[in-house]
Amino acid sequence: MQNSQQQAYDRGITIFSPDGRLYQVEYAREAVKRGSPSVGVRTHDGVVLLAGGRVRSSLQVPDSVEKIHKIDDHIGIASAGHAADARQLVDFARRQAQVERLRYEQPVTVESLTKEITDNIQQYTQTGGARPFGVALLVGGVDENGTPRLFETDPSGTPYEWQAVAIGADSEAIQKRLEEEYDEALSLDEGLDLALRAMAAENGGTGTLDPVGMSAARIDAETGAYEALTREELASRIEELGLLG
Amino acid sequence: MQNSQQQAYDRGITIFSPDGRLYQVEYAREAVKRGSPSVGVRTHDGVVLLAGGRVRSSLQVPDSVEKIHKIDDHIGIASAGHAADARQLVDFARRQAQVERLRYEQPVTVESLTKEITDNIQQYTQTGGARPFGVALLVGGVDENGTPRLFETDPSGTPYEWQAVAIGADSEAIQKRLEEEYDEALSLDEGLDLALRAMAAENGGTGTLDPVGMSAARIDAETGAYEALTREELASRIEELGLLG
Amino acid sequence: MQNSQQQAYDRGITIFSPDGRLYQVEYAREAVKRGSPSVGVRTHDGVVLLAGGRVRSSLQVPDSVEKIHKIDDHIGIASAGHAADARQLVDFARRQAQVERLRYEQPVTVESLTKEITDNIQQYTQTGGARPFGVALLVGGVDENGTPRLFETDPSGTPYEWQAVAIGADSEAIQKRLEEEYDEALSLDEGLDLALRAMAAENGGTGTLDPVGMSAARIDAETGAYEALTREELASRIEELGLLG
Amino acid sequence: MQNSQQQAYDRGITIFSPDGRLYQVEYAREAVKRGSPSVGVRTHDGVVLLAGGRVRSSLQVPDSVEKIHKIDDHIGIASAGHAADARQLVDFARRQAQVERLRYEQPVTVESLTKEITDNIQQYTQTGGARPFGVALLVGGVDENGTPRLFETDPSGTPYEWQAVAIGADSEAIQKRLEEEYDEALSLDEGLDLALRAMAAENGGTGTLDPVGMSAARIDAETGAYEALTREELASRIEELGLLG
Amino acid sequence: MQNSQQQAYDRGITIFSPDGRLYQVEYAREAVKRGSPSVGVRTHDGVVLLAGGRVRSSLQVPDSVEKIHKIDDHIGIASAGHAADARQLVDFARRQAQVERLRYEQPVTVESLTKEITDNIQQYTQTGGARPFGVALLVGGVDENGTPRLFETDPSGTPYEWQAVAIGADSEAIQKRLEEEYDEALSLDEGLDLALRAMAAENGGTGTLDPVGMSAARIDAETGAYEALTREELASRIEELGLLG
Amino acid sequence: MQNSQQQAYDRGITIFSPDGRLYQVEYAREAVKRGSPSVGVRTHDGVVLLAGGRVRSSLQVPDSVEKIHKIDDHIGIASAGHAADARQLVDFARRQAQVERLRYEQPVTVESLTKEITDNIQQYTQTGGARPFGVALLVGGVDENGTPRLFETDPSGTPYEWQAVAIGADSEAIQKRLEEEYDEALSLDEGLDLALRAMAAENGGTGTLDPVGMSAARIDAETGAYEALTREELASRIEELGLLG
Amino acid sequence: MQNSQQQAYDRGITIFSPDGRLYQVEYAREAVKRGSPSVGVRTHDGVVLLAGGRVRSSLQVPDSVEKIHKIDDHIGIASAGHAADARQLVDFARRQAQVERLRYEQPVTVESLTKEITDNIQQYTQTGGARPFGVALLVGGVDENGTPRLFETDPSGTPYEWQAVAIGADSEAIQKRLEEEYDEALSLDEGLDLALRAMAAENGGTGTLDPVGMSAARIDAETGAYEALTREELASRIEELGLLG
Repeated sequence: MQNSQQQAYDRGITIFSPDGRLYQVEYAREAVKRGSPSVGVRTHDGVVLLAGGRVRSSLQVPDSVEKIHKIDDHIGIASAGHAADARQLVDFARRQAQVERLRYEQPVTVESLTKEITDNIQQYTQTGGARPFGVALLVGGVDENGTPRLFETDPSGTPYEWQAVAIGADSEAIQKRLEEEYDEALSLDEGLDLALRAMAAENGGTGTLDPVGMSAARIDAETGAYEALTREELASRIEELGLLG
Repeated sequence: MQNSQQQAYDRGITIFSPDGRLYQVEYAREAVKRGSPSVGVRTHDGVVLLAGGRVRSSLQVPDSVEKIHKIDDHIGIASAGHAADARQLVDFARRQAQVERLRYEQPVTVESLTKEITDNIQQYTQTGGARPFGVALLVGGVDENGTPRLFETDPSGTPYEWQAVAIGADSEAIQKRLEEEYDEALSLDEGLDLALRAMAAENGGTGTLDPVGMSAARIDAETGAYEALTREELASRIEELGLLG
Repeated sequence: MQNSQQQAYDRGITIFSPDGRLYQVEYAREAVKRGSPSVGVRTHDGVVLLAGGRVRSSLQVPDSVEKIHKIDDHIGIASAGHAADARQLVDFARRQAQVERLRYEQPVTVESLTKEITDNIQQYTQTGGARPFGVALLVGGVDENGTPRLFETDPSGTPYEWQAVAIGADSEAIQKRLEEEYDEALSLDEGLDLALRAMAAENGGTGTLDPVGMSAARIDAETGAYEALTREELASRIEELGLLG
Repeated sequence: MQNSQQQAYDRGITIFSPDGRLYQVEYAREAVKRGSPSVGVRTHDGVVLLAGGRVRSSLQVPDSVEKIHKIDDHIGIASAGHAADARQLVDFARRQAQVERLRYEQPVTVESLTKEITDNIQQYTQTGGARPFGVALLVGGVDENGTPRLFETDPSGTPYEWQAVAIGADSEAIQKRLEEEYDEALSLDEGLDLALRAMAAENGGTGTLDPVGMSAARIDAETGAYEALTREELASRIEELGLLG
Repeated sequence: MQNSQQQAYDRGITIFSPDGRLYQVEYAREAVKRGSPSVGVRTHDGVVLLAGGRVRSSLQVPDSVEKIHKIDDHIGIASAGHAADARQLVDFARRQAQVERLRYEQPVTVESLTKEITDNIQQYTQTGGARPFGVALLVGGVDENGTPRLFETDPSGTPYEWQAVAIGADSEAIQKRLEEEYDEALSLDEGLDLALRAMAAENGGTGTLDPVGMSAARIDAETGAYEALTREELASRIEELGLLG
Repeated sequence: MQNSQQQAYDRGITIFSPDGRLYQVEYAREAVKRGSPSVGVRTHDGVVLLAGGRVRSSLQVPDSVEKIHKIDDHIGIASAGHAADARQLVDFARRQAQVERLRYEQPVTVESLTKEITDNIQQYTQTGGARPFGVALLVGGVDENGTPRLFETDPSGTPYEWQAVAIGADSEAIQKRLEEEYDEALSLDEGLDLALRAMAAENGGTGTLDPVGMSAARIDAETGAYEALTREELASRIEELGLLG
Repeated sequence: MQNSQQQAYDRGITIFSPDGRLYQVEYAREAVKRGSPSVGVRTHDGVVLLAGGRVRSSLQVPDSVEKIHKIDDHIGIASAGHAADARQLVDFARRQAQVERLRYEQPVTVESLTKEITDNIQQYTQTGGARPFGVALLVGGVDENGTPRLFETDPSGTPYEWQAVAIGADSEAIQKRLEEEYDEALSLDEGLDLALRAMAAENGGTGTLDPVGMSAARIDAETGAYEALTREELASRIEELGLLG
């Protein structure tokens, strides 16, 4: 599949291929596709994050593989890809959010935080001595003025803003479903339902979901507060939607 | 296509080929050509910047892929190429503009700022441990004395000044159109029209433009103030010109 | 077995393969599988850690190959893999536990400590100039509120939480046994018995254990105190269970 | 053409070939030959610098590709080769000139400045981690005692002093013409005429010059002041000499 | 013998082989086996260290190739392998022993000192820019409470505690003899006799020893003091045991 | 000519070949042989330095290619080989001479200065990240006690003291002539004549010299002062000796 | 002779071969064997050092190639191998001797100084970025208590103490002669005679010595003072022994 021409330019991040590509960044995108998917949906009244997950054994504590993290009172991050890399960026985001609070005595905006994260990611693609981050993030939250925002970061360090977006395994197929069903009039609860249905539809042809290992969080525009769904809430919603595997 | 002789000299930025070329810089220029085009036009009464853009999905928020950035009250930058690299240089430019304001208590000139940017770019082509920036920029603005200026920076770190210029995909064809139609007597509004017509003419043979993902900004010589066009303004102007796809 | 395509991407930690894998991290996991196994079991009333071990000669002092280490009054770590690497992480964990005590005037939680360890591990997989740690750890302990916690760290730097888990040689087979027999109602003593039976069942087809070189520790939820079993206690328990080789 | 023996020694600046050559420095000289030519002429009453240039489009502002730069009141620099590298050395020269003025309260001599530049260039050919500068410079000026001086710097970091000299494309042929026509009795104006005729004679067989993209400057021994020729002055002189293409 | 698969992974310390091995550390163990053997024996009343050695010429001063070094009043170190590397670790151990004395106002324990040495060794196996130490050490001594301790350090940086142990050339065969004859009731003098007999039995099939180049030291549990045997004491003991070659 | 065995060991300065040679240093000696020759002669009443040189064009100012440099009142240096490297060492020597004057309030001796230079050269042959200096120097001068001294430095960083010596192109043949004709009774003027005759005899079979590009200096033992010969003095002496080409 | 297996492991100092050897250190020993020999003899009343040497031309000042250096009042060093490397270690030794005098207000012992030198040498064999020293040294002197000591350092950084020893070219044959004729009853003068006879016997089959380029020094136990022999003393002694070539 891969020819020897390509091989000549994919061994280091500090080198362009003759057609202007950065292969290591493209391979890091493959690491994202190897991870279980995450979905974000922004509605007029908030942002919802949903993450799939895999449990290696029935004895594993499901919370420990959760891929949604509270960053600040009003912001959460979901990830897909290399889990250890995601943790580094989550820690980075938490520190930045705290620093901004101290410096400006007000919460960081979702956009500012996203851009600080992508700046950090970009530097790992240009300066030698390190590999790119093999992870994509969904940064969702509500700004102080009540506006819900939803961003994606990719391994090149580019930020994208979305109404609804999927990352990780099968993300293209899930995205297509989101496009078909997304409506600006959706409520936050309906946004979660959309995310669950889209992820179920592409889940290995089963059309169902297994709540174990999954996680979800919502940031309501009114309260502006990050709130993780309990496993029970998530499971009962999946069941109500008839998506339980 | 590419022979083994060339391959021997294109793996590092710190090495010349036997015929005196820096292949990594040339490959970075290919990264520029992979990006959607941007156009800048300088008229006697200001500078206009126009940038194409691609939306990956109907759910993407178009603003988030904008490729024109306000740098200071009187200067904007449009880019073509590796988006994450562009963001780094935009941040660099903003910091430099602020530093100059503080140090000299007056706004930086467009030319000074451009040269600080190209100095920064050049160092990534000579000193080891990093790759060149895979992006070209258009730096446009109005100096305190009311003079409009428009510069281009390329991946080698060379600044060029233009009356009208295109960078990115199809830039050579667009440039040819600009040359044919540019006139020193153009007003700022006519400059925008010229940019739109030239970009439309080379847009995949369609002769039309899709305002989604596009962005434009103008710096008027009289006010000396950067002003981004709203999506509506841009779309209605495209329509008035009969260029709507 | 291994093809030349793979060989091209497994020589450095700073490089992804075209399918998004980090081979050096995967090889470090093989180093874990080369080590004798360790097992952790969390019950409602505490955590028990059990580690196999090999004695190179009858003159070797068995304690000196112990693979369970007290980290703080309430936390212990068992390891599998490259022994010298394990020692570095154990020392790191002890220093962190002390630092937290001094800074916050209360004991570190099991989860916090685990995450500080995995952050440290991750950095050895991303930044150049060093190899990954060739070791997995079981971090077990009881938090101040009396909750028993049991975590695993892997060479990628990802933390996992478990009710019962095996690492090292034959860990997959041992894990399967743990899954079959684990019960949330187990007492701490029964947890130790489960660990011993599971490890014996997969010990080279013998179904027995040799207490020499083995070690065990328990952290009781009530006292919250790490307590190493003496070799005699361990040996007599193995005998009572009819597992003595 | 190039044999495999040579290839073995031209990949790094820190290595001599078996016959004692530094191939990277020699390749940097090829980068100089790829640039449009510059000519310097020293007469008894001053120094004149003349630089060719290429305009990529009729919309390019010719000044922006000028290759002659004022360094201090009494010194100018013309360049041939990699333009971004030239800018670095020009900036370096300006800083050094300022530093010397502050430190010794008198202007730097042309020779001192040249040697500070060549020291800087040499270090990029001996110490690892960077490539040589792909540019040659003409440093011309008048010392405080009224003596005109004209130096060349090459990519190895060696300074040469000249009565008249050409660098860049076709420099050997232009130099031959300078040798044939140079006369110590030339006035500064006649020096410019000589430079123009020599450059025209070797300009692609046309025998003519296109003033667009060209630039010229003179430092008069009496005033000791750097003075750039306006494009009009240059064009009308080209015309008077019958060299207009 | 060695296949090309292995060769691909043994050129650097920062890289695991696909089966999880660190070849450079394994090769450093071969450097240990190239050195003449050392033996340590711990009895209830002390520790004895014995080291073989090779004299390159009859004019060499035998003391100068001694491989047993006093580290502190109560601790000695014997080595096998790369002699210059051993000297570095001996110096490191002496400095650490002094630092501990100053800091805690009591002598370092044998175990603490051993672990500081192995930490130092491990870092040379993980961080780039250096090779592992090609030497094994025997660290023997008596703690302040009168307990004799005997440790081995290997090139991976793992400490092992022993009752009796051999390192270096033929160490496996010597170890087998130690296992056959060691008895916990041995006195310190009998411990030396055991070491001498075991080393003689495996000395090139001769069954004898040449005291020239050999050295021995004892740390008596009662006095807790390191005491080097004179060459005469060692020679006469070898003779009394009928082992003189 | 050169076999593949040698090629394996000549790519870096930090590596010995199996027969104990440093090929990069040997190749740097070839760079010396590529340069025009220099000759030094020490007589009882002083030291004379003579340097050949090449003028690239009749318009080159001959002084600018001079290869003899005044270092301090009483010391001069002539060079052969890579001119830009020579300049670095000349600058280094001047700084050292000044530093010594300030520190000890007396002029540096010729021997001390030579050894500071060779220490500097040696470090470029042992520590990584740089190539050796491709130049040999003749350091000649008169110490405060009136003793004339003449040293050579080579690219390995070894100093040699001479009565008369040649470096650079044809240095072996010139040296043979010096050996045949040198006499301890020579006066300083006769020393210059000897140098001129020896250099002329080996100058491409012509037996003559072209004073253009040549330079000479003398340090008289009585005055202890460095004195450069004017071009006229040198030319007329060449003519008087019948050596004018 | 040398097979491809070996070639794979001899390109860097930071790497062991599969059989535990450091090839770069072994190649540095070959550099020692390429140098002219040095001999040291320790007698009851002092130490004598003798060094061969090669003069490249009859005009070379013989002292300048001397290979014996005074380090302190009571210590001298002779060398064999890469001369520029020897100079570095000699300078290092002189600085260390001075530092010790200042710090402890008494002269450094011969053994302490030797070990500081070998520590320095060892670090160049373990840490990356530099090659080993290609030189062996003989460190001879008399301690304050009047004891003569004679040490050898080799490129691995191991010190050896000797009664009499040869290094450099033909050192094995010379050593054999020393072994045959050395007697502990020798006086210092007889020690010099022994060194001269041994070196002459192996001097290219001539059985004679050429005093030009040779050097000798003695440190008398009574005075404890380093004393270089004059060339006349050395020549007349060679003649008296009938060894003059």
